[in-house]
Amino acid sequence: MNKSIDAKPRPGRGRRPGRADTREVVLDVARRRFLADGYQAVSLRSIATEAGVDVALLSYFFGSKQGLFAAALRLPTNPAVAIAEALPGDIAGVPERLLRKMLTVWDDRANSAPLRAMLGVAGEDPDITRLLRELVERELIVPLAKLIGGRDAYKRAGMAAALMSGVVFSRYVLEVEPMASATVDEVVSYLAPALASVLHPAARAPRRPSR
Amino acid sequence: MNKSIDAKPRPGRGRRPGRADTREVVLDVARRRFLADGYQAVSLRSIATEAGVDVALLSYFFGSKQGLFAAALRLPTNPAVAIAEALPGDIAGVPERLLRKMLTVWDDRANSAPLRAMLGVAGEDPDITRLLRELVERELIVPLAKLIGGRDAYKRAGMAAALMSGVVFSRYVLEVEPMASATVDEVVSYLAPALASVLHPAARAPRRPSR
Repeated sequence: MNKSIDAKPRPGRGRRPGRADTREVVLDVARRRFLADGYQAVSLRSIATEAGVDVALLSYFFGSKQGLFAAALRLPTNPAVAIAEALPGDIAGVPERLLRKMLTVWDDRANSAPLRAMLGVAGEDPDITRLLRELVERELIVPLAKLIGGRDAYKRAGMAAALMSGVVFSRYVLEVEPMASATVDEVVSYLAPALASVLHPAARAPRRPSR
Repeated sequence: MNKSIDAKPRPGRGRRPGRADTREVVLDVARRRFLADGYQAVSLRSIATEAGVDVALLSYFFGSKQGLFAAALRLPTNPAVAIAEALPGDIAGVPERLLRKMLTVWDDRANSAPLRAMLGVAGEDPDITRLLRELVERELIVPLAKLIGGRDAYKRAGMAAALMSGVVFSRYVLEVEPMASATVDEVVSYLAPALASVLHPAARAPRRPSR
């Protein structure tokens, strides 16, 4: 289920001859540029130019900007792809699928070690903070809002993302009990209904604030 | 509503003569000990001993270990006291009162600046991480579990705490939109029902995991 985001490299056709070397040069450039300029400002084309390779090679190697980003951070699973995999299907099942997918990706230490390292310095390192913020907004909140639709879809998706980030922060960063050692089924059984109440107005009308 | 946790000092009766001086010595010792040994392992008595003052003076100055902790971190509002203020009253109103109180404390930059600085290094600094973990467990999860009662109260309280920590992390650390600029009323209207579904089984039975 966890697809590797590392496409198999084929012989480089950029200016550099060795393919492993080319790939590493691209990843070094990408890592540096994502941190310096933020996820949004960086284009595949600008990285290709700086690395001295054809932009088509980047698409071939990494599939997309998200793929390149995940590869640059050495994540075996691309969080954006994982989210995209969890969204299709019956809409009532979205909360459970999103929670399961998120927990599966993060429970795998090969993914969670670099993600945790990034989260651990969020708030201290403004570059990392901006990068994470943009990722959550673009890869989770925007697709989720499109999926659920409706007048306040963006607000609802943002609240849902906050709930999900709380699971990550408690379970993998603070390691607060009982969240840290709860099973995936337990987290889903307690939090899927909560997530559903945020995402699906039909399931539970929002309360008017009492003051 | 936000009580100051700084009790007015009266003349010191420890070994050190100047009261301002005594108070600063105590706070320095407390800050160092909380970070080195963790919140749980430190007692008022051990801090008094190390600071060379009578333990009664610490109680008089700071009220409690929580009070001393908040003072040591220079928080105008003690998070533990804020939580304790939100819990009493009709149980159905707990989710809204907790969310409102939390947002009120954190929206005040005088509180959020030092809290944010701590959160910002959580995951990187193991001492801070442990301190935050213990605080969330002892000051939020345990009292909440006692309040709601029932077989799985501790699990439910932990899941609720995760949801709340997600609000804090998204709004104040990552500053993800739309959470970062949502009004308190908006956050309450979307998330109080979600929090209620976690805390009150009667309000919404937990779903059986489908696999």
